[in-house]
Amino acid sequence: MTGEPDAGGSGGERDDGQDAILEANAAFYRAFAERDLEAMDRLWAREAPVACTHPAWTVLTGREDVLKSWEGILTNPDAPSIEVQDAVAHRLGETAIVLCREIVEGAPIEATNVFVLEGGEWRIAHHHASAIARFLVSRSVETDPFRDRRN
Amino acid sequence: MTGEPDAGGSGGERDDGQDAILEANAAFYRAFAERDLEAMDRLWAREAPVACTHPAWTVLTGREDVLKSWEGILTNPDAPSIEVQDAVAHRLGETAIVLCREIVEGAPIEATNVFVLEGGEWRIAHHHASAIARFLVSRSVETDPFRDRRN
Repeated sequence: MTGEPDAGGSGGERDDGQDAILEANAAFYRAFAERDLEAMDRLWAREAPVACTHPAWTVLTGREDVLKSWEGILTNPDAPSIEVQDAVAHRLGETAIVLCREIVEGAPIEATNVFVLEGGEWRIAHHHASAIARFLVSRSVETDPFRDRRN
Repeated sequence: MTGEPDAGGSGGERDDGQDAILEANAAFYRAFAERDLEAMDRLWAREAPVACTHPAWTVLTGREDVLKSWEGILTNPDAPSIEVQDAVAHRLGETAIVLCREIVEGAPIEATNVFVLEGGEWRIAHHHASAIARFLVSRSVETDPFRDRRN
């Protein structure tokens, strides 16, 4: 959880359902780690539009293209190992953003996963993952990534 | 817009308010391009928790740290030029995901911007941007980024 004040309203509902949101996020990474394409398919939204931005990749939109990309990854014998750390959920009404760190073949990846409530289940509508510059991983937060990266 | 079916429900409301969502997204990039820190501050959510993942950076959470990062970027005399292309909004009730392509100093960046409705205004709650591998930019969509990137 962040230190943000809870000012109420649609954006402030962060306590209800945190466990269910984080469990949906964990299920997403279990499906990845276990190469379980059926579970992966079940986890993606069916009513909300879906999209997916794999690391260094252009965005994929539409359920068919997104699931095809996962089929390619999960059926690839060289699919990378994956672990997930430090997941935090920001609930925004019937949508939630989960921020977490992926460790893919030992390399740190920052991930944004957006979930939506569909039929009482949290389903993933968007995944965006991007590699973290290695020299940043153990550093404290700086205020200007652009300036910093030039040093 | 994607070719997703509109099945109704909270995830299917994609026609109402598209213009306002895309205008909020455009205002975000105007604030960046014009180095307008006041406008940038106004655009970020005040009720919803906020977060920001700059390219290759670790995630920043909390309004204070996120706005500090923008202050660093916008007051830096060497701040990069930025243009935005191909913005598409996926409305999810009172939340919306905007997917767009940033051109930062000529380099393509894929961006996810999550907006929330606060007091009738669409405000940004999360920004995640990541560089696109150059060889992918002009390519058609492939189904397996991991396999493909090894070739």
